[in-house]
Amino acid sequence: MDTMGRHVISELWGCNTDKLNDMKFIEETFVNAALNAGAEIREVAFHKFAPHGVSGVVIISESHLTIHSFPEHGYASIDVYTCGDRIDPNVAATYIAEALGADKNESIEVPRGMGPIEVKQKLSAMS
Amino acid sequence: MDTMGRHVISELWGCNTDKLNDMKFIEETFVNAALNAGAEIREVAFHKFAPHGVSGVVIISESHLTIHSFPEHGYASIDVYTCGDRIDPNVAATYIAEALGADKNESIEVPRGMGPIEVKQKLSAMS
Repeated sequence: MDTMGRHVISELWGCNTDKLNDMKFIEETFVNAALNAGAEIREVAFHKFAPHGVSGVVIISESHLTIHSFPEHGYASIDVYTCGDRIDPNVAATYIAEALGADKNESIEVPRGMGPIEVKQKLSAMS
Repeated sequence: MDTMGRHVISELWGCNTDKLNDMKFIEETFVNAALNAGAEIREVAFHKFAPHGVSGVVIISESHLTIHSFPEHGYASIDVYTCGDRIDPNVAATYIAEALGADKNESIEVPRGMGPIEVKQKLSAMS
């Protein structure tokens, strides 16, 4: 398998607070985001923190999706990393941002497995 | 909990091929890397691919550590993300790079949860 990959890092602000604290909703959203992007799911692990917040990962054949949510700040920290060129990580990242009702989505794309890392800035606002 | 976090992305080249294909070794390495950095482990999920390669995650109270290994290329793609300022993700990232016998370690640090993302380049070679 080629080492080439694309890693989208999304900082989501102004998300729906209830959704950010709903582990079942987040887990379903992440599984659906992976499937919508055409990924093959291998492992799913989520954890609910007290008093609030959810962390979790979906490991896919093509790498991973992760979240750490901070309901009290309306903030979710998202990573979508896909190896190869068959899948566009932005499809999953956008699906997640919309599902969580993010007002603001600050994202960068980091190329992986291609030598020295050169980050692409791509600031985008959502309404 | 504050949203502030530090995310180290490490591209490890010239790693030990056998170690990159040894799921048990990688899982132990990641658990120890997290503990050495002072993190609290919440979930551990690793997956071995056929014919080769390992993907996995350790979810910690302070965020996560992930790996995707490509033994046939001597390459491992590492993320160590820690929330708060109590833990230094570089401690875990360096531990992992050394354990995998990486000849070359190209890393960047991405600040998380602090508004627009400004990446710090920090190219480092290991011997």
